Amino acid sequence: MPTEPLPAFDPERFRREGRAVVDWIADYWQTVADRPVQSSVDPGWVRSQLPAHPPEQPEPLAAVLADLDHVIVPGLTHWQHPGFFAYFPASASGPSILGELLSAGMGVQGMLWATSPACTELETHVLDWLRELLGLPDRFASTGVGGGVIHDSASSGLLCAVVAARERALQCSRVEETVVGRPEQRQPLVGYTSAAAHSSIEKGLGIAGIDRQWLRKIETNDRGELDADRLAARMDADARNGMIPFFVAATVGTTSSGAFDAVPLIAAATRRHNAWLHVDAAWAGAAAICPELRGGIVAGAEAADSWGFNPHKWLLVNFDCHTLWVADRRPFVRALSMKPDYLRNAATESGSVIDYSDWQVPLGRRFRALKLWMTLRMIGAAALRQRIRDHVAWAAEFADWVRADRRFELLAEPSLSLVAFGLRAGDEATAALLDRVNRSGRVLLSPARVGGRHALRLAVGGTLTRREDVETAWREISRLA
Amino acid sequence: MPTEPLPAFDPERFRREGRAVVDWIADYWQTVADRPVQSSVDPGWVRSQLPAHPPEQPEPLAAVLADLDHVIVPGLTHWQHPGFFAYFPASASGPSILGELLSAGMGVQGMLWATSPACTELETHVLDWLRELLGLPDRFASTGVGGGVIHDSASSGLLCAVVAARERALQCSRVEETVVGRPEQRQPLVGYTSAAAHSSIEKGLGIAGIDRQWLRKIETNDRGELDADRLAARMDADARNGMIPFFVAATVGTTSSGAFDAVPLIAAATRRHNAWLHVDAAWAGAAAICPELRGGIVAGAEAADSWGFNPHKWLLVNFDCHTLWVADRRPFVRALSMKPDYLRNAATESGSVIDYSDWQVPLGRRFRALKLWMTLRMIGAAALRQRIRDHVAWAAEFADWVRADRRFELLAEPSLSLVAFGLRAGDEATAALLDRVNRSGRVLLSPARVGGRHALRLAVGGTLTRREDVETAWREISRLA
Repeated sequence: MPTEPLPAFDPERFRREGRAVVDWIADYWQTVADRPVQSSVDPGWVRSQLPAHPPEQPEPLAAVLADLDHVIVPGLTHWQHPGFFAYFPASASGPSILGELLSAGMGVQGMLWATSPACTELETHVLDWLRELLGLPDRFASTGVGGGVIHDSASSGLLCAVVAARERALQCSRVEETVVGRPEQRQPLVGYTSAAAHSSIEKGLGIAGIDRQWLRKIETNDRGELDADRLAARMDADARNGMIPFFVAATVGTTSSGAFDAVPLIAAATRRHNAWLHVDAAWAGAAAICPELRGGIVAGAEAADSWGFNPHKWLLVNFDCHTLWVADRRPFVRALSMKPDYLRNAATESGSVIDYSDWQVPLGRRFRALKLWMTLRMIGAAALRQRIRDHVAWAAEFADWVRADRRFELLAEPSLSLVAFGLRAGDEATAALLDRVNRSGRVLLSPARVGGRHALRLAVGGTLTRREDVETAWREISRLA
Repeated sequence: MPTEPLPAFDPERFRREGRAVVDWIADYWQTVADRPVQSSVDPGWVRSQLPAHPPEQPEPLAAVLADLDHVIVPGLTHWQHPGFFAYFPASASGPSILGELLSAGMGVQGMLWATSPACTELETHVLDWLRELLGLPDRFASTGVGGGVIHDSASSGLLCAVVAARERALQCSRVEETVVGRPEQRQPLVGYTSAAAHSSIEKGLGIAGIDRQWLRKIETNDRGELDADRLAARMDADARNGMIPFFVAATVGTTSSGAFDAVPLIAAATRRHNAWLHVDAAWAGAAAICPELRGGIVAGAEAADSWGFNPHKWLLVNFDCHTLWVADRRPFVRALSMKPDYLRNAATESGSVIDYSDWQVPLGRRFRALKLWMTLRMIGAAALRQRIRDHVAWAAEFADWVRADRRFELLAEPSLSLVAFGLRAGDEATAALLDRVNRSGRVLLSPARVGGRHALRLAVGGTLTRREDVETAWREISRLA
C-alpha cells in the first residue's frame, strides 16, 4: 500500500487508469446479457461487504475494480441489459458516455454564461437543433423569447414550470396580497392534470406549496386520456367559486399505458383561464423525431407554455438528461433568478446572455450539453429515427403475440414501444406472473394499474435490445404464465 | 461520411474512442495552465461556429474532438486552471472523473433500492464514512433514524430540508387547516437566516411557496456572523404575533467572507420554537476532516435537523456532489415520497430499505456515490487532509502579503482558504482592479460585498493550484493595483 499522498491529478496515471476503466466498461457491456437482469441480493448485503471505516491511505485502482466485480455488479439491476423492459429504459450509448466523461474531465461549472460561455451556448444551440428534429413550434426556439434548457429530470423541469406559472398567476391577478404561503391569500391556486399523469406532477406541486387538495386529478376516458370536457367544466366551476386555475399538466404518453392526452382540446380550456400549460412528453417525446409518429406528440404544442421530454429515456443519451422548452423565458427567470453580489458580472448586466442558473433549482450546473451534442453528432438523426421505428415495430409484434394467446389480453392498445397487458385469469395471476418473470433473470418488466386492473408493462427501448430479445421476452412470459 | 447507422454501443469502438477521450482530457489538464483562465469570447461567438442544423448522418469522434479544440475550449472559463480562485473552486480529481465515467458506463438508475441495490447501499455507506471523517454526530448515521444522501447541489438539499420542515411544522401545529398554499391558513410559516447567507436559501424558500416577506434576514455582527440574540428576539416576537417560526438556516463559512455563524446559540433559539435547523456548510464543511479545524465547523451540529456540504468544492470530487445528512429521515420521506403503482416493489413494502427518490426532488438518480467512494479510496483521508491544511496555510500567507501592502486592506480576517480584501482607495478602485486582474488571464477572482464594501475574493482550492500559483496571484494583483 503506498503511503505517500498521490497527486489529485497525474496525467500519466490518468491515461493508464482511464484506459483500464474504459476497458472495464466495454467488458461490462459485452457480458451484461449473460447476467441476471435483476439483482437478487438481500437488503444489507452490499454494505456487509464494505469496510466499516473509511480508508486513511490510498488504494490502487485495481482494488476498486475488484470490488466493482465482486460487490457492486452483483448488486446492480442492469438497466443496459437487453432484457430490461421495465419502467422506461434509460438507454445509454458510447458517444453519450464519452460526453459525460468529457464533462467531468473539463470540470467547468456553467451557472452563468460568464463562468463558461461554451457550456451555455452549446446547450442553447443543441436544444434548438433538437427542437427542429422534434418538429416543435418556433415559439420554443431561442431566437425569440423562448428557448430550451437541460434539467436532470422531468420532475425538476415540472417543478420549475409550476413555480413560473405561480409567479405569472400571482402577477396577473394584480392582487398584491395573493401570494402563495401568505395567509392573506383568499384565492387558492388550483392545478389540473389527469388521474393517469405521472406522480412527479403531484410531487412538484406539493414542493411548490400547492397542497394536494388543490390538485384536480381529472378522470380519464377508457383509453386513459384526460377528459378535456371534464377539465373545462372543472376549471370553470373553480373559477366561479373564486379559485385561480393556474396550471395544467397534459401528458403525451402516460407511464402506465402510453395514453396521449388531447393537448389541443386541453389548450382551449387552459387558455380561457390564462393558466400555464405544461406538456409532459417524458418518454414519448423522443418519437417526435420520426415525422410519421409526430402528429399526436406535438399536437397542441403551439399553445403550451412549457414542453419537456427525456433524451435519457429513448434517445441514447445516458441518464440524466431532461430537455425542457419554454415559450417565454421571462416568467421563468423572474421566478428563479437570484443575483447576489458574488455572482455579478458584466455579461449578465448587459442582458445579452442566458444564465441557466435562472432556469433551474440549483445554482451550479454540469456541462450536460456535451453528451447530447455528441450523441446527435456521432449517431446522427437518421439512425436515431431508425431505432425508434424498430422499437415501435417490435412492440406491435409483441402485442400481436399477446392478442393471439387466449390466456392473455392487452389492457390498452400498444402505444409506440409500450405494451400493457395481463392475464385473463385476473389480477392475482398477473401479479404472480410478474414475480416469476422477473425472478427468471432474463427479462425485467414492471407493474402498473390500467383501467383498474393489474398490468404488466413491456417498454422496448434498451440500447442493446434486439428484435430477438423481445421474442425471448415473450417466450419467457408465455412459458411462465 | 458513413451512411449506415452505427450501433449505439460497439465495445471495440468504445475502447478505441474511450482511449482518445481519456488522452484528450489528460492533454487538457497538462496544458490548462498555459491558457487564459477566463474565456474572452463575445456572446454568440460559440454558437456562430456551430452548424445551424442538426446532423442527419454520423460524424467521427475526430470531428468532435476538433470542435472541442477550436470552438469549445476557447469558450471555457477554466475551473481546473491553477489560477482559478473565483467563487469556490469546483475541484476535480482523476479518481472522481473515473467514478463519473463508471457511473455513466454502468448506466443504472437508482430511484429505488430495488432498481439497483448497490447504488443505494454504496451511497448510504460512503455517507456514513464521510460523517465519521467529518466528526459529525452519531445522529446523522444511517444506523439510527438519520442518514446521508447525495444531491446535485446545496440548493437542492436546502429545498428538500425546507419542504420537510414545512411538513413537520404543519403536522406539529395540529391544525388541519394550516397547510401552505391553503387560503384558510391564518398563520404564516416564517424562515430565518443571516443577511450574509447564500442566495439559495431565499430561492429555496421561494420555490417552496414561502414568500420573501416571510424570510427574516437577520443582521450580522461586524464579523459577518448571524446575531443570535437578534434571531432569538425576532423568533419570539413572530411567535407572539401568531406566526410559526419553522425553519432556520445557519451558515458555516459564508460565501462572501467565510464567516461562521454561532450554531450552538442559534440552536438554542431554534429549539425553543421547535423549528427545523439546517446548517449550510457548503464550502467550509470539507475542512472538518482535519480535527484541528473541525471545532467551529461542527459545533452545534448535534442540534441540527439537517447538515450539508459540497465535496465538489474542496474534497476533489468533480461537480456535482452535495452531501446532506438528516437527523430523522421520516419527515423527509413523508414530505417527498410518492409511490404510484408503477414503482411498487416488495423491498419498498418490506420497509427495510432506503428509496433515495424519497429524499430528493427528482424521481430518477445517477450512481453518484461511485465518484465519492473512488475519491476517498484512491486518494485517502490523509492526503485529503494535507491538501486542506496546505490551502489554509497558503491563504494565511496571502493574507499576510495583503496586510503588509499599505495600498490594500483585509475586509475580513482570512477564513480557512478564503481571503476577502480590497484597496484602501475605495470601492471603485477595487472594482477596477478586479476587472484588470481577471482580464490578465493568469488569475481569476470574484467580487463580493463585505461590510458594505466592494471586495475581491481569493478562494484557494483548485486541484492543480500550488503555493507558487498563490504567489503568482499576489504578484499579479499587486502589479495591477
